[in-house]
Amino acid sequence: MNELILELINQNKLTEARHELEDMNIVDIAQLFEEIDRHQLIKFFRILPKDIAADVFSYIPTELQAFIIESITDFEIKHIIDDLFFDDTVDLIEEMPAVVVKKVLKSTDEQMRKLINQFLNYPEDSAGSVMTIEFVDLKKEMTVKHALSHIRKTGIDKETINTCYVIDANRKLEGIVSIRRLILSNSDELVEDIMNTDIIYIHTYDDQEKIAMLFKKYDLLSMPVVDNEIRLVGIITVDDVVDIIDQENTEDIHKMAAMAPSEEEYLKTSVLTLAKNRIVWLLVLMISATITGNIISKFQNVLETVVILATYVPMLMNTGGNAGSQSSTMAIRGLALGEIAPRDFLMIVWKEFRVSILVGFVLASVNFLRILMFDKVSINIGIVVSASLFFTVAMAKVVGGLLPLMAQKLKLDPAIMASPLITTIVDAVSLTIYFTMSTMLLGL
Amino acid sequence: MNELILELINQNKLTEARHELEDMNIVDIAQLFEEIDRHQLIKFFRILPKDIAADVFSYIPTELQAFIIESITDFEIKHIIDDLFFDDTVDLIEEMPAVVVKKVLKSTDEQMRKLINQFLNYPEDSAGSVMTIEFVDLKKEMTVKHALSHIRKTGIDKETINTCYVIDANRKLEGIVSIRRLILSNSDELVEDIMNTDIIYIHTYDDQEKIAMLFKKYDLLSMPVVDNEIRLVGIITVDDVVDIIDQENTEDIHKMAAMAPSEEEYLKTSVLTLAKNRIVWLLVLMISATITGNIISKFQNVLETVVILATYVPMLMNTGGNAGSQSSTMAIRGLALGEIAPRDFLMIVWKEFRVSILVGFVLASVNFLRILMFDKVSINIGIVVSASLFFTVAMAKVVGGLLPLMAQKLKLDPAIMASPLITTIVDAVSLTIYFTMSTMLLGL
Repeated sequence: MNELILELINQNKLTEARHELEDMNIVDIAQLFEEIDRHQLIKFFRILPKDIAADVFSYIPTELQAFIIESITDFEIKHIIDDLFFDDTVDLIEEMPAVVVKKVLKSTDEQMRKLINQFLNYPEDSAGSVMTIEFVDLKKEMTVKHALSHIRKTGIDKETINTCYVIDANRKLEGIVSIRRLILSNSDELVEDIMNTDIIYIHTYDDQEKIAMLFKKYDLLSMPVVDNEIRLVGIITVDDVVDIIDQENTEDIHKMAAMAPSEEEYLKTSVLTLAKNRIVWLLVLMISATITGNIISKFQNVLETVVILATYVPMLMNTGGNAGSQSSTMAIRGLALGEIAPRDFLMIVWKEFRVSILVGFVLASVNFLRILMFDKVSINIGIVVSASLFFTVAMAKVVGGLLPLMAQKLKLDPAIMASPLITTIVDAVSLTIYFTMSTMLLGL
Repeated sequence: MNELILELINQNKLTEARHELEDMNIVDIAQLFEEIDRHQLIKFFRILPKDIAADVFSYIPTELQAFIIESITDFEIKHIIDDLFFDDTVDLIEEMPAVVVKKVLKSTDEQMRKLINQFLNYPEDSAGSVMTIEFVDLKKEMTVKHALSHIRKTGIDKETINTCYVIDANRKLEGIVSIRRLILSNSDELVEDIMNTDIIYIHTYDDQEKIAMLFKKYDLLSMPVVDNEIRLVGIITVDDVVDIIDQENTEDIHKMAAMAPSEEEYLKTSVLTLAKNRIVWLLVLMISATITGNIISKFQNVLETVVILATYVPMLMNTGGNAGSQSSTMAIRGLALGEIAPRDFLMIVWKEFRVSILVGFVLASVNFLRILMFDKVSINIGIVVSASLFFTVAMAKVVGGLLPLMAQKLKLDPAIMASPLITTIVDAVSLTIYFTMSTMLLGL
């Protein structure tokens, strides 16, 4: 299908190409723009049926959007902007180069420019910056019949009609009513009598993390956004929330790997930005790792006497680090999903402690047998290494389980207490355990 | 509000309590069940308005569901099961203890038991196991008016009426039409003329990862599930997809921390299961870390001559590991979100290489200065350590960026190429670099 359309465009058979586009999904059409040659792009854009052009446009990658806007007439731009949902227009303006933004703003009237400005002022990742303003509003005095005819008249330009919002003369939110409820009710019932007044809503300045949490908890399809006087200013729909969830997860995952979180796609991020996002934590962790080095140098005399002890350092450090980051990952993810809370402190210590005893015992035993069988060292060294391993694992799991909770309690992001930081802490403690036990048990 | 209701129930003022429940969100009512005393629980459940009892029930935690079913009459159970959406019934049966399942199945007829069995046979996390069967089906010969009256008649029991499915006499899927389209169309138009025939659907045996991917790509609210003959057997709604996305993310995050993924909540998972999920990878990584130990013992003579070299081992190992896991995390996440693909191989090598040069240079410089200023060692050792650090970071970033892509190419899960495994590989290579450079530059 795709090849056929590209072929038709190359041969300038535009009517046929246009015919093929009918009934294609707009997302798939938008994807064609990425495959087409630059010099054919505007030609292709112009054959899009007028009623889907704006929809398709909203799914095209930013750089191609900019290219299209730069190349088409002001009249065509106005047509697109009029048809775009308002949140897509705001996104467009946020991401375009200044010269393109100017061209876009020229096609909007005074009132819209004011509104755009207001939206651009909402903090990044706030409900205000995510919402859209195309929703269906009803009055509670309307009958179901009246409401449905109102929807028929105004619904075509709305982002969704599946949920409608009941507001009073001052735009204060009074209730919500689903299209399902409207359709299944008698036509002479009043909206007031069928609307739901227990409304889950969010304020313009609330963070998108809260939005995602509420959508998940209440299985919502859309949610009203209100200002301080509970006046309805916009709505958020579930398709945006799906993106928010992915974004929030990516942010957590990046932090857990000791990187500054970034919302941009990897391939689109510059080398310099990537380096900047990574260097700070690497520096911090590198400097803190010198503490571990200092511990080794403190025990230099032990090491000079039994150099073979050095060969077990990587195994001890890695196993401790891995054991700790398993626990911290469980805790961080549990906190992010709301499955655990700082008040579960004691339960988590107790659980991690028991897990660590089991895991530590198995690891230490396997390690002891391996040393006995394969390494030509005294049984005492086997005991020292395995006992250190056991205590390291126990300590790592408890520390790993607790630090994210403590971070949460201190209003820090638990995700920063992830593997790299846990590893650094665990390293220092485990080597202290190891060399202290060596000194004692080997009589050094 | 919650305290008030709990108070009223304690005082046995059930009519008042019931009155308070009206207009409360069912999710919030379900949450009350977790706060109420066990011996009050059935009393509370029985005052729920009949039309929301099943809905509330579907949001109660499994163990309380089991307790309720065990305590109420068969007649009451039948009432709940009749009102539950089919996918919730199947979930219930999957999670209940056998004795409870028996009680539930007693309240279902032959036909439903057959259907339940069929659903239980779908593989875990397949589209079949996630879908529900309560959807609105239309025929293409219907007029819009006829379709709407059909929806009015049957819609009350459907999970959603926002999207309706057009099927032929053999239940073959022919099109979809949104309630929006129906409402905005003229009442004498034919469904055939307004339905969308470019349908995004999924097969019963497809994995839920694919479901999430399609929902995200096409911003869907629901999706039809079909069998091999493209006959419609169920639908999946976006609220289930939100849960799937979280599940898939948790799975990836667990794998990235070297744990067997688990879908259960942390606090509800037994110590033994937690230990089992963690021990395998810890063992594998512990054994492979002995390779790093062997490298140290191979260079034992170097270490014996200049014991101070040992103090830089943790810093080198950690920084290399962190640098590598940053890159692998970016690659794993990029693959999971579909932002990068194995064919981007060369672009990623080139990008990671340039990032690593920048990052490595900064780290090595800071490290060199730190050694000169604070450590009482020869400048040669400073050079060896810093040069090793530079090469380690460069190697770690390229390896970290590439291994996830290679895993994907080999049809393995890229998430297993995460920090722990990368760290183990990077450790071995970095120590080899370090001791080789020491041997050469220090003339050992």
